[in-house]
Amino acid sequence: MTNATSTNPSAASDPPTVVEHVLSEPDLTYQFGGGRYPIADVLPGQVLRTSTEDCFGGAVRTVDDLPSQVCQGRFNPVTGPFRVLGAEPGDTLALHFVRIDPARDWGMSAIFPHFGALTRTHATAMLHEPLPETVWRYDIDPTAGLVRYRARRSAYTVELPLDPMLGTVGVAPAADEVRSSIVPDVHGGNLDTPELRAGTTLYLPVNVPGAMFSLGDGHARQGQGEVCGVAVETAMHVTVAVDVIKGVPTALPRIETDHQLISIGVGRPLEDAFRGSQNDLVRWTTELTGLDLYDAYQLVSQAGRAAAGNVCDPNYTMHAAIDTTILRGASAYDGAHRRLRELARSIRS
Amino acid sequence: MTNATSTNPSAASDPPTVVEHVLSEPDLTYQFGGGRYPIADVLPGQVLRTSTEDCFGGAVRTVDDLPSQVCQGRFNPVTGPFRVLGAEPGDTLALHFVRIDPARDWGMSAIFPHFGALTRTHATAMLHEPLPETVWRYDIDPTAGLVRYRARRSAYTVELPLDPMLGTVGVAPAADEVRSSIVPDVHGGNLDTPELRAGTTLYLPVNVPGAMFSLGDGHARQGQGEVCGVAVETAMHVTVAVDVIKGVPTALPRIETDHQLISIGVGRPLEDAFRGSQNDLVRWTTELTGLDLYDAYQLVSQAGRAAAGNVCDPNYTMHAAIDTTILRGASAYDGAHRRLRELARSIRS
Amino acid sequence: MTNATSTNPSAASDPPTVVEHVLSEPDLTYQFGGGRYPIADVLPGQVLRTSTEDCFGGAVRTVDDLPSQVCQGRFNPVTGPFRVLGAEPGDTLALHFVRIDPARDWGMSAIFPHFGALTRTHATAMLHEPLPETVWRYDIDPTAGLVRYRARRSAYTVELPLDPMLGTVGVAPAADEVRSSIVPDVHGGNLDTPELRAGTTLYLPVNVPGAMFSLGDGHARQGQGEVCGVAVETAMHVTVAVDVIKGVPTALPRIETDHQLISIGVGRPLEDAFRGSQNDLVRWTTELTGLDLYDAYQLVSQAGRAAAGNVCDPNYTMHAAIDTTILRGASAYDGAHRRLRELARSIRS
Amino acid sequence: MTNATSTNPSAASDPPTVVEHVLSEPDLTYQFGGGRYPIADVLPGQVLRTSTEDCFGGAVRTVDDLPSQVCQGRFNPVTGPFRVLGAEPGDTLALHFVRIDPARDWGMSAIFPHFGALTRTHATAMLHEPLPETVWRYDIDPTAGLVRYRARRSAYTVELPLDPMLGTVGVAPAADEVRSSIVPDVHGGNLDTPELRAGTTLYLPVNVPGAMFSLGDGHARQGQGEVCGVAVETAMHVTVAVDVIKGVPTALPRIETDHQLISIGVGRPLEDAFRGSQNDLVRWTTELTGLDLYDAYQLVSQAGRAAAGNVCDPNYTMHAAIDTTILRGASAYDGAHRRLRELARSIRS
Repeated sequence: MTNATSTNPSAASDPPTVVEHVLSEPDLTYQFGGGRYPIADVLPGQVLRTSTEDCFGGAVRTVDDLPSQVCQGRFNPVTGPFRVLGAEPGDTLALHFVRIDPARDWGMSAIFPHFGALTRTHATAMLHEPLPETVWRYDIDPTAGLVRYRARRSAYTVELPLDPMLGTVGVAPAADEVRSSIVPDVHGGNLDTPELRAGTTLYLPVNVPGAMFSLGDGHARQGQGEVCGVAVETAMHVTVAVDVIKGVPTALPRIETDHQLISIGVGRPLEDAFRGSQNDLVRWTTELTGLDLYDAYQLVSQAGRAAAGNVCDPNYTMHAAIDTTILRGASAYDGAHRRLRELARSIRS
Repeated sequence: MTNATSTNPSAASDPPTVVEHVLSEPDLTYQFGGGRYPIADVLPGQVLRTSTEDCFGGAVRTVDDLPSQVCQGRFNPVTGPFRVLGAEPGDTLALHFVRIDPARDWGMSAIFPHFGALTRTHATAMLHEPLPETVWRYDIDPTAGLVRYRARRSAYTVELPLDPMLGTVGVAPAADEVRSSIVPDVHGGNLDTPELRAGTTLYLPVNVPGAMFSLGDGHARQGQGEVCGVAVETAMHVTVAVDVIKGVPTALPRIETDHQLISIGVGRPLEDAFRGSQNDLVRWTTELTGLDLYDAYQLVSQAGRAAAGNVCDPNYTMHAAIDTTILRGASAYDGAHRRLRELARSIRS
Repeated sequence: MTNATSTNPSAASDPPTVVEHVLSEPDLTYQFGGGRYPIADVLPGQVLRTSTEDCFGGAVRTVDDLPSQVCQGRFNPVTGPFRVLGAEPGDTLALHFVRIDPARDWGMSAIFPHFGALTRTHATAMLHEPLPETVWRYDIDPTAGLVRYRARRSAYTVELPLDPMLGTVGVAPAADEVRSSIVPDVHGGNLDTPELRAGTTLYLPVNVPGAMFSLGDGHARQGQGEVCGVAVETAMHVTVAVDVIKGVPTALPRIETDHQLISIGVGRPLEDAFRGSQNDLVRWTTELTGLDLYDAYQLVSQAGRAAAGNVCDPNYTMHAAIDTTILRGASAYDGAHRRLRELARSIRS
Repeated sequence: MTNATSTNPSAASDPPTVVEHVLSEPDLTYQFGGGRYPIADVLPGQVLRTSTEDCFGGAVRTVDDLPSQVCQGRFNPVTGPFRVLGAEPGDTLALHFVRIDPARDWGMSAIFPHFGALTRTHATAMLHEPLPETVWRYDIDPTAGLVRYRARRSAYTVELPLDPMLGTVGVAPAADEVRSSIVPDVHGGNLDTPELRAGTTLYLPVNVPGAMFSLGDGHARQGQGEVCGVAVETAMHVTVAVDVIKGVPTALPRIETDHQLISIGVGRPLEDAFRGSQNDLVRWTTELTGLDLYDAYQLVSQAGRAAAGNVCDPNYTMHAAIDTTILRGASAYDGAHRRLRELARSIRS
């Protein structure tokens, strides 16, 4: 924890507003939960600046670096855990992502054996040989806001919008479980949903004192569903504003943006992830509007969106989204998202 | 077929450009396929104007009309079949939707027993009692482009964007099957995907001479996933430009818009609908760009979208979408969409 | 229908007890439902003797006959339809299989491209190449009651018990649907469950006047789940006693043996086939014993069996079974199984 | 560990053959994995005698004890972990169940809110109210070998065969994960398969030094699929012979009986549990017989069995079984099952 310092631009006597954490190798973990000591403490209302490695631990740098050979069987390191002082089981952790910026001008992707939606996997066992392990390298141009795709077996290249996000953000699971950072579940984790970009607030359940959150797995961009199982993976600099909603539990990961509410369902088969997300959004709508349960079901049915996050990880994710205008200005978590946006703005100015 | 007339504004000797079909009760069918006589013939290059009833056959008009009581057990009438002269098995039928306009200023929705994604169904059998059958009535305001939701158990109302689409468009199935109009499958049918709006072109396989397509199940709008199982159902006036791509087969329903290509996967569990859609989009990308299969897999993984159509019908639907710019101007079906847009424009002028 | 004759050993004035049907090529169909004329009429209380071809139409005879080449794209012919005079929608058809005897001393199996549980399929789309199409030939020895397996790539052979059954038995579907004989659903069809052997009674819904049942797809034996998608396929001589339970509807295929009741769930994903079967068995138990719904749920939970029929066809099947002793002598369908057993016995003597 | 003693009837200088462990409250755990200290050490070749509590921790004793009220939110305690000296990652742990005897003359079952196959659950979210929590009490008569069911809402009673088994046996998971004892996965855990009875050998992967296995969740009997989510739960006295197969890894839980080999697939949807089990059995068959992969696929397809273990837990289980005669006397794990049977016999004599 020695590498975390705090600064407070506003007042000497107040608790510092910004916690700076400089990433070093021991601050990486491959689990959510467990007895691991926090790498830094954060107070509700503080802003954390930290960094994340890519899902290959930075070991895949050229198209000749096969993940199965250079990664030593360890994937998806996350930075953490961070302890949020005062967070208690039954509270909700709010993480507002102020900035998610690529730390490199390149990103890597791959077809990895037994991983992805269009191949046999360990979960969907078949007799086929694995697809050939293949690596792609992308150029990242933050100034132009572009990511350049380059085919491996032809000269085809094309530029895609840069859209940085974090694939993996989570807290210590309930029931003293310890989960691999590869796994998404109700504690968050490897959600791999493109919605987790700067400007959004992620709500997660607090299952243990201090919440013990970690983050990583930056993607310069990813498609919905993350079909081949791997996005444009890159290291990131992350600024996140932290808050705790006391006494308000949250069952599933939720995201709030300036214009929409999103419930993230996690599970298998994919319709159960869909059901989980829509069920949560219907019930959330009920709470925020006072609508009857079936009236909310009807409203979400006509106004909701339903896209895939990932269909490749140990659990799939789908998100159910609704525009906040349709909820007539209802304020989730007592305005946490707006409050955190303002906190973020105060830091930048 | 007596109620179909053809007019050709351009030239007396040419085949008429517009086929007008006036809907009457005998032109409604509840199946795709079978020996039913075509209600009208259309030539490739012609534009068809017709109408559709809503999924309740127009019998549900107030919130007191329970579908289980007033619909006599018949749901989802479609207008058809239309025979496309010259279409042969192995061809692709292209249907470009020029206009889809609500024929009424109201639409109906419902929670129907044993139907919907958040209830036990005949397919997902459980011991729960059914959810209470409930009907909602919406006002449709085409001028303002709005649909007004009105809660049943409170005074809550809210306006949603009008976004008319057809839930059900399909051809006679392969292998001489006859399918209920409730069922979506590779022949199209009850796809219930919000993408099927005016301005798009739907590609379907031709399985029998004449293709024998039918359409109906208009929605003033629907959410992705059609969670409760029923959209804002209303009658529609439909204008559709018809073409046949000779000798080019199509495996799954596909949609082209001005800016994107969409493959529609159909099946259960939902991940199989997802896989079907993404697999088709990867292979379509390969064909259109010359990319290697794995290069296309990689590109779609980073650039694709994946949203649910319906998660309530006998088969679920998901769509895999990609922007055509990413395919660097590749032209699907030899430019059929652009050609049909122009045909549509010539009619309107 | 000229090839069906009736004989009655008991009395000249009674309707004949046995209907003999001699199979010829035109009596084979590849669908359930549709307007096809019945190949023979059967009265309730009569016994039908007929024959069935194998799923390859007899075209695969050596390990060098690849189904994709020799079958002309048509699979699973069934013998029928047979019309049951007096059967009306809302009744239940009871088919008691008196004998199912291999008509040949050999049977064939295969790995067929895109078919089977451990390979990508059309429904579970992936990027793998298909598994190599391969054929196995079995010797059938009815006297010893054995089927001899012979490896293709080594000298390994082993004898398995002969256990003849019909893979496909069904009626015309509801709602005027016509389904390929490859498809299992609530109308029966390609159930592919090893329980459908001689000595059992199959109950099916009657959806159209005359029920219009067909049967075929004999298996000298199959494993539960039919993992590779193909059993030991062979032609069969079949003797079936026919009855109709008037005014008693049946929702799903059910089987009664001398010692157990079996409900067959059909659907995807496999847990929905499981749910369908167990839900039906719980409700059947309730009807037969007078137990409360939850008491029946509890009893089936402790006493029931749950095995896979097929996990390869367009719908999967699972069966839920319970010993009749546990239901304390309850009599399903008013003793139809016992009555048909006695009818069968009278014919044999 | 003070309550574990060892005795060796054969020789003073040999390591003791039998390890006696007397269960006390602190020996119960609700997780697999984690840093918990072993409650006793066992050597390969030793026999362990211990006891297990029921899944309610013994707190449900009458039909008026509702689990949601009397169990304080903790379910499924297991006895352990036991450390197997010398077991290393990459080895296989063999646990031969010599005896599994009910420790009480009663057992309990229940419908628990949001749990079971025929109800909405946390994984399969819906809008229904939960089924009413209900408890059943069974009499267990070991002498007669019977379990007596007694309906709650009528006078119906019936006797079922006593068939004691353990629902939950597992080791510390791989990748340093810690999993709730409710969860089955490749480390074993809450497999809830009726095959885990006395006379069988369970093979599990060793993921950490000492394997760290735990066991519990005794069932006086359960149906296949454990439909309502709860079996006839009771405390057990367990005798288990322990061995380690050095240097031989195992991917999935496997069971060997005197007559069959069983692979247990774990996952969701249920077809993935099915695929996992059948894929493992095909590959196991290949190893044991020298058959080519596709020849083994074919053989298992005709000779295998496929029944559900549970379709209610966080992961479902299915087992793929084949008679060892069909494998022509092949010996799994170098005869471990036979060796352990003989060890068991030597103890009893």
